[in-house]
Amino acid sequence: MNEQFPFAERGRCRVVIENVSPEIEAGRFPIKRVIGEHVVVEADIFADGHDSLAAVLKFRAEESPEWSETPMESLANDRWRGEFFTTKLGNYFYTIEAWVDQFKSWQTDLQKKLEAGQDVSIELRAGAQLIERAAQRAASRDAENLLSWAKELSIGESITGDPIARRALNRDLTDTARRCLGRQFSTKYEKELPVAVDPERARFSAWYEMFPRSFASAAEKHGTFKDCELQLPRISKMGFDVLYLPPIHPIGKSFRKGKNNNVVCEPGEPGSPWAIESGAGGHKAIHPELGTLEDFKSLIARAKEFKIEIALDIAFQCSPDHPYIREHPQWFRHRPDGSIQYAENPPKKYQDIVPFDFECEDWKNLWQELKSVFTFWIGQGVNIFRVDNPHTKPFAFLEWCIAELKATNHELIFLSEAFTRPKPMYHLAELGFTQSYNYFPWRNSKDELETYFTELTQSPVADFFHPNLWPNTPDILAQFLQTDGREAFAIRLVLAATLGASYGIYGPAFELCENTPREPGSEEYLNSEKYEIKRWDLSAPHSLENLIARVNQIRRENPALQSDRNLKFHRVDNDQLIAYTKSTDDGSDTILTVVNLSPHYTHSGWLELPLEEFGLDARKTYQMHDLLTDARFLWRGPRNYVELNPVLSSAHIFRLRRHVRTEHDFDYFA
Amino acid sequence: MNEQFPFAERGRCRVVIENVSPEIEAGRFPIKRVIGEHVVVEADIFADGHDSLAAVLKFRAEESPEWSETPMESLANDRWRGEFFTTKLGNYFYTIEAWVDQFKSWQTDLQKKLEAGQDVSIELRAGAQLIERAAQRAASRDAENLLSWAKELSIGESITGDPIARRALNRDLTDTARRCLGRQFSTKYEKELPVAVDPERARFSAWYEMFPRSFASAAEKHGTFKDCELQLPRISKMGFDVLYLPPIHPIGKSFRKGKNNNVVCEPGEPGSPWAIESGAGGHKAIHPELGTLEDFKSLIARAKEFKIEIALDIAFQCSPDHPYIREHPQWFRHRPDGSIQYAENPPKKYQDIVPFDFECEDWKNLWQELKSVFTFWIGQGVNIFRVDNPHTKPFAFLEWCIAELKATNHELIFLSEAFTRPKPMYHLAELGFTQSYNYFPWRNSKDELETYFTELTQSPVADFFHPNLWPNTPDILAQFLQTDGREAFAIRLVLAATLGASYGIYGPAFELCENTPREPGSEEYLNSEKYEIKRWDLSAPHSLENLIARVNQIRRENPALQSDRNLKFHRVDNDQLIAYTKSTDDGSDTILTVVNLSPHYTHSGWLELPLEEFGLDARKTYQMHDLLTDARFLWRGPRNYVELNPVLSSAHIFRLRRHVRTEHDFDYFA
Repeated sequence: MNEQFPFAERGRCRVVIENVSPEIEAGRFPIKRVIGEHVVVEADIFADGHDSLAAVLKFRAEESPEWSETPMESLANDRWRGEFFTTKLGNYFYTIEAWVDQFKSWQTDLQKKLEAGQDVSIELRAGAQLIERAAQRAASRDAENLLSWAKELSIGESITGDPIARRALNRDLTDTARRCLGRQFSTKYEKELPVAVDPERARFSAWYEMFPRSFASAAEKHGTFKDCELQLPRISKMGFDVLYLPPIHPIGKSFRKGKNNNVVCEPGEPGSPWAIESGAGGHKAIHPELGTLEDFKSLIARAKEFKIEIALDIAFQCSPDHPYIREHPQWFRHRPDGSIQYAENPPKKYQDIVPFDFECEDWKNLWQELKSVFTFWIGQGVNIFRVDNPHTKPFAFLEWCIAELKATNHELIFLSEAFTRPKPMYHLAELGFTQSYNYFPWRNSKDELETYFTELTQSPVADFFHPNLWPNTPDILAQFLQTDGREAFAIRLVLAATLGASYGIYGPAFELCENTPREPGSEEYLNSEKYEIKRWDLSAPHSLENLIARVNQIRRENPALQSDRNLKFHRVDNDQLIAYTKSTDDGSDTILTVVNLSPHYTHSGWLELPLEEFGLDARKTYQMHDLLTDARFLWRGPRNYVELNPVLSSAHIFRLRRHVRTEHDFDYFA
Repeated sequence: MNEQFPFAERGRCRVVIENVSPEIEAGRFPIKRVIGEHVVVEADIFADGHDSLAAVLKFRAEESPEWSETPMESLANDRWRGEFFTTKLGNYFYTIEAWVDQFKSWQTDLQKKLEAGQDVSIELRAGAQLIERAAQRAASRDAENLLSWAKELSIGESITGDPIARRALNRDLTDTARRCLGRQFSTKYEKELPVAVDPERARFSAWYEMFPRSFASAAEKHGTFKDCELQLPRISKMGFDVLYLPPIHPIGKSFRKGKNNNVVCEPGEPGSPWAIESGAGGHKAIHPELGTLEDFKSLIARAKEFKIEIALDIAFQCSPDHPYIREHPQWFRHRPDGSIQYAENPPKKYQDIVPFDFECEDWKNLWQELKSVFTFWIGQGVNIFRVDNPHTKPFAFLEWCIAELKATNHELIFLSEAFTRPKPMYHLAELGFTQSYNYFPWRNSKDELETYFTELTQSPVADFFHPNLWPNTPDILAQFLQTDGREAFAIRLVLAATLGASYGIYGPAFELCENTPREPGSEEYLNSEKYEIKRWDLSAPHSLENLIARVNQIRRENPALQSDRNLKFHRVDNDQLIAYTKSTDDGSDTILTVVNLSPHYTHSGWLELPLEEFGLDARKTYQMHDLLTDARFLWRGPRNYVELNPVLSSAHIFRLRRHVRTEHDFDYFA
């Protein structure tokens, strides 16, 4: 008979659970949360008829076999919601169970009949039967209480003096009865949906990228890890908590690129750190001129004292001198003339770079070896990796590699450097990358910024994609930065640091407002540090160090700025002024940022705020405290005037202060 | 080793397929199409790197084990699209396969290098190697051609006289090589997504509901199936193709409802057809006063001659006299006093109706018995069922029952009568109902209609929900109809018949503009036909018969009106005027409907049409032919004036005619 009943086991399960959110690609990929964050789950839950339903959100950390539960609440239109908090790093799972709540259904119907003045004696006896059933499953004490309650209802006589009808709705006994009746014919959602829980830095971080070789104490020398240590106080003072170094491996000699990416390299030129390996050691070796492995570990330890983590750049490609090419020729493509296939993006050729052939027969050993590169550096104390061009490596490899590494080390953070098309960019985040570079460098106008950051923070993308906003990188001198000097850098800094809970700059080029492109129309730096050792004048008076330090301090002191999903844009009647708030869930911290997007001109306009969302009374004055300048403004009502002169400041970063001092606060005895 | 490689079998499959549409609840439910319709499938398809990809849409009818294939095309932003046509009733499945197209990648790179003037001799040799690999898998003739081609490329000498570079791009040989190279490391989408293919009437139908008992030839008599036969010419002349009868089973006597739903029934009152069964036979019997089973079959046969199908109403509930209650007491709930539990929606009681207890132990036999009710009537020639209140029966039962019945009879159509909340209403369509009643009776203003029909036709809902629009039913005398006489009925008729490819009316109450509610504020009819036999004056001069006949003829003659997903609203600068078009896919038929929503006043406004979507030249005159009045208007440009006086006509139903006669058409020799 079961042949004909494909739903046999759930034939009497009357509740439907569907349209669960969040749920990425039918549960194929985890949503992301950082430790301590809550996961809010919603679903359509309904049954035939008009019975009352009950639903629970079930969740567990991967290693615990037992589910925890929290009740879900019914919102409007058959939508239900529940939430749980993540308290451990690693993976969680959640799912939903829902059932017809017989006891609540009985009580609800009873109440309606009572209100209509109907005779309910038979209904009370029906309730007594339900309660007796509950008593059979109850522990002795509960059973006793339930049985006595059932007796009252069946004979229609209250023992408390309360009217029997009110007695039937007794809340304590109701809870006991509902619990003991259990979940007959409950529907279990068929999927267990994953959550990746990462350390807080996955969501909130400030990155500083620098080339160690440019920081030698003496001119004409190659900077070392030791020299980097001397930079730590400055970086810490600016408020960064991740120091990211381009690849630290030996640099290839064959086809080494010269200054400004010249295909001819003059003797003595250092080459690009992304052309990995000369001689022995490969991706697990250190470029001798930077120092030793011990020096590197010392840098990590010193950085920790400043609460700074070192992030390493992993670029899975080889220079033609890389030992892999001799030891594992099967991992590379060869051309019909026997030569090795270098990287190409026709008609462009990258003869200093040899890609792996991930379609080779020996792919499993290749995967293991590449994974071991991460494992090696994790062993030295590195927890954060920026992965170079991941969109040119197979997605299956990256998914496997990150999952394997995170299974034993939940602290790891992987930043995806994929300036590629939207779908592959998002897919890299889905498959496991913790943070992602994104299109921020090319979103400049108010409309572009609002549209893009609404997509990143208010669509399902926000559940798996942590954007990391970089106004510049060694590869990108964004056009906006090229023409308007210091003000342009200040604008992009404030936008990056307040739109994004994570952001980064490539310094000191950024704070020193280095803005000359290699040629007009190019977004490459002239005399790029990628191909040569630079000397930076860190004490130049136009340096943005102080502004950066101030902005990072504001970020640290205001939890509202440490999230992305809380971003909301607000109307200003001037297209050169952009305004947005971020608030903590409990409303205790609200930051309003207003930026004048024009580096040249003063702009003013009327700003509209949804006061009720901030718990403000439209008839009362509130204070806006500009954390950049420490100026305080008294505002009233939803519309207020803002004006920004870029010579003074291109931005307000206001903290909303609800309490304004009045005469009642005056202390007559002070 | 495979332990560590959960993706082992797809480690080298570099293509990602995700975000496939249509896809309902991760493929749990089928999308709906009618026979001959196409299924357009889109997906995000991409791989690492910049290789060229290829993708196919695979599809098959359920009974055929072999997949058919059609290539998918790349749109913008990594989105791909393919389509197939449904040619058989029953279920189809579709899925996607995609792979890196090595040969195309090679040719694309080659072409770029040629355009950049680079030396390509090694590339030609690499191509020759690929072609040789293809030749190994080719049939003899192809193999010969490919090998000779490979030879040309490897020695760099063309045999055709064409430059060797152009020769490398030869299209015929390219197709052969690509085909023979096959689909190395192809990615197969993990789901096979279902399609339910129904007869055309599932999408395009005009229903007429009537109570046979009111059509006796002599007064004071109970109408019969024979009397119904006499109505067929009239119904056919009006243009309906489904004649839907309320339940035809014997009507219960216990607690029989009297006139106007009175709980007391006078002797001789007929009762409600939905209170099923007195005496023997139950849901498989016919109310004796309507005639015999033979009479019913004769009605079906006569109707077929008029191309009309009979739709039966299946109401899964019993009167207290139903034989099930004696024979299967275990299928019902009993109250503590031993009495049977009648239907309730507290504080309302429906003592003439006893619901089944779908949670009973014997549920499997109950399911089988209820299914056998359909099977019985299918055996008598019924293919269309209107299911009464399906939202009060378990979804699992309905899903099982409809699937079982349709497995052996693909022609079946099930109409869901669920005037319930949106989520259960949609879920009934997901689980198998072909057509659905919906909120049309309560959507009256322009904004309400636009919002609701955009949701029904332009969101994913359109893939599984065929709305059937009823301006009235025996249960619903919509408020809009109550106050404004004939014009109100005309407005709702045109809206139902042109907004919906399927619609229906409850007649003759509708065409005779019966509009008195039981009491002010009620949407029940006064002296409802549900509880008494009516006499209708079908020849009344105010009857809408002629308008209905005209509108149904327009629907039949214009395929644009036979679909729902092609609905588009257009701007009119008057909120009392609503305008929308429907077009066939090939653009050969475009219908513009404009309705004056006010039954009282003339309204006019300027209408904006997107001419380019209709293939119209903004500088040329086109003709709008009003199919209701046969008037023709010459329009030019996107903005045109419309005016509707409800005394003359509340609507235009324009057919767009592109060709306007000019002097060049004049036949000098005629």
